[in-house]
Amino acid sequence: MSEGRKSLQEAFQHTEYPLTGHGKRNVQVLKDALDGYDGAAASDVYGTGAIIENFQTKLADYLGKPSAVFFPSGTMAQQIALRIWCDERQLLKVAYHPLCHLEIHEEDGLKELHHIEPVLLADKERIIRLEDVRELKEEVACLLLELPQREIGGQLPDFAELEAISTYCREKGIKLHLDGARLYECLPYYQKTAAEVCALFDSVYVSFYKGIGGVAGAILAGDEDFTKHSKVWKRRHGGDLISLYPYIISADQGFEERLPRMEQYYRDAVELAALYNACPDITTKPEVPVTNMFHVHAALPKEKLEDVLLSFYEETGIGLTGNVRPTGETSCYYEVSIGDAYGRVSKEKLREAFQALQDKMQPRLL
Amino acid sequence: MSEGRKSLQEAFQHTEYPLTGHGKRNVQVLKDALDGYDGAAASDVYGTGAIIENFQTKLADYLGKPSAVFFPSGTMAQQIALRIWCDERQLLKVAYHPLCHLEIHEEDGLKELHHIEPVLLADKERIIRLEDVRELKEEVACLLLELPQREIGGQLPDFAELEAISTYCREKGIKLHLDGARLYECLPYYQKTAAEVCALFDSVYVSFYKGIGGVAGAILAGDEDFTKHSKVWKRRHGGDLISLYPYIISADQGFEERLPRMEQYYRDAVELAALYNACPDITTKPEVPVTNMFHVHAALPKEKLEDVLLSFYEETGIGLTGNVRPTGETSCYYEVSIGDAYGRVSKEKLREAFQALQDKMQPRLL
Repeated sequence: MSEGRKSLQEAFQHTEYPLTGHGKRNVQVLKDALDGYDGAAASDVYGTGAIIENFQTKLADYLGKPSAVFFPSGTMAQQIALRIWCDERQLLKVAYHPLCHLEIHEEDGLKELHHIEPVLLADKERIIRLEDVRELKEEVACLLLELPQREIGGQLPDFAELEAISTYCREKGIKLHLDGARLYECLPYYQKTAAEVCALFDSVYVSFYKGIGGVAGAILAGDEDFTKHSKVWKRRHGGDLISLYPYIISADQGFEERLPRMEQYYRDAVELAALYNACPDITTKPEVPVTNMFHVHAALPKEKLEDVLLSFYEETGIGLTGNVRPTGETSCYYEVSIGDAYGRVSKEKLREAFQALQDKMQPRLL
Repeated sequence: MSEGRKSLQEAFQHTEYPLTGHGKRNVQVLKDALDGYDGAAASDVYGTGAIIENFQTKLADYLGKPSAVFFPSGTMAQQIALRIWCDERQLLKVAYHPLCHLEIHEEDGLKELHHIEPVLLADKERIIRLEDVRELKEEVACLLLELPQREIGGQLPDFAELEAISTYCREKGIKLHLDGARLYECLPYYQKTAAEVCALFDSVYVSFYKGIGGVAGAILAGDEDFTKHSKVWKRRHGGDLISLYPYIISADQGFEERLPRMEQYYRDAVELAALYNACPDITTKPEVPVTNMFHVHAALPKEKLEDVLLSFYEETGIGLTGNVRPTGETSCYYEVSIGDAYGRVSKEKLREAFQALQDKMQPRLL
């Protein structure tokens, strides 16, 4: 099975027309970002210097917050945000979704380093609603909302529900933190500015290597007092590097280049999901995407779907995914995230390819 | 005073012939490292991939350890090393020098994140000796030694004393960790390989932006079990970035280019210290350097020395430092670290300049 996975990943890497992402994550990405950048520009030095300060100011303005700090990773930024709110409330307890990044991807850093106990809200399969927050049995210092909720295909609450949650949290003295790793990707659906969304939150994290396509890095934003504390914790975590400029330069370039394309990525995702949903035994989650991402669920064992995909890649040259995960004995899924790559494939080629996929997915004698 | 400092830093930045470091820390450093590097090389992905794994293997071999892990910072790597040894011994106590990086530069990350209590060994003014370790009143899980001890001018114990400390620690079951931020810089004095020095230690951290001149980054090395644990903690700290290659590529380039020059840097430091010691009211610490670094102490108030330096920079075009720190009302010091820049100044120019410095330092009517 591990060999099967590897060969799907390899086959995907070699397809001429991948439909997801922005292109290969290789060293050329950084070379391109540095091309034309003034070599004489001084490195940032432990969080100071024009190169980092200007970008922080730019993102603070964009997010509508008084202050912002550049971090090497979202993992670091978010643990620190929750720690600050817990310390302020003198209560080491927060609430978040069961599939929150902090819960499933960080080796329990929040618990092991900060001794913060999470209360899991809502069911794994759906997003957090106002009633989940209302029904909280325990006091918490902070509620973390992830927009969109990545692990269930990038789902979003209605903006009105978001406003209601924000109002409720303010009434109850619960700080509201935004995991906005894919915040930019929500804006076309909400038809709001980033600042309008962030106004509902006390602190905000955004990432630069998802939709923005940078090399790595994150911004944590909030009021001056919050970000001042976050810099102390950034040093404690070992994130106050002498030089973060390689990430900042590529983040800034991606931000300028790709922010205006978020609407297009979103429309492309809606189009592609419709093509998938026309195939037998395939459904997308959400059925109609609300961002540039969705999950593709197949009523087939993982290995069977991988066989279909391998043959599809060979026949069409189109790459759909390198990584299929089982959800049961006879079902599996993969994530789709739209970026620049999608636009490089002609609509005609796309229609032909999905006709071929429909044919391959016709119920067969197993 | 803050304005005075700023103008010394600025004046130093604009000198034609700085005597310290490798040159300006600007974006060109990264551009140069990427020049000629294959753009098609795939990014590392969360600690995996040839670009990170090959460098880790190379450094493990160089340090004579079974395994090595690349970290974004030494702050992160070292806290984690001590945490692993403390967990193994089930004792949250370590010993290190009062001017240890963890004690004075990390906002107490070791205490705040890991709840590890340090026992301070030796006097601030001197390095740790075997007798200090022998006289330890408390049990500790780990002893950290910094080679060379940066904050007192880069002093080193004799190799025989180092061996004796290592033997003693092994007898007592105390793990020995090496803060080798400047390990390469010690080797010409010890006349040992890195592996011969590291053989005395259970775990080792080395840096890539001091003598090596890279953009940032660190390696933590030890046995397989140790580095396996360190990767879990690296993720918890938020250091397991999707891409660390910008640091790795520049670290590798600096390693290849500058490792062979460490002997020269050391000899240059000895030469330059002698020139300083010929000036009235100036002494270096150590008097005869044992690495590429030393401190310059002046029996003058900080502001007076800054005046002398500003006039010296203007007259000679040679830059000595951008940062003078007071040690008392009438004394101050600065750090000197030799790299590529020193070799760019002719011996004749150097002699003339230090003659001028001697003249300027002649006792004046204040």
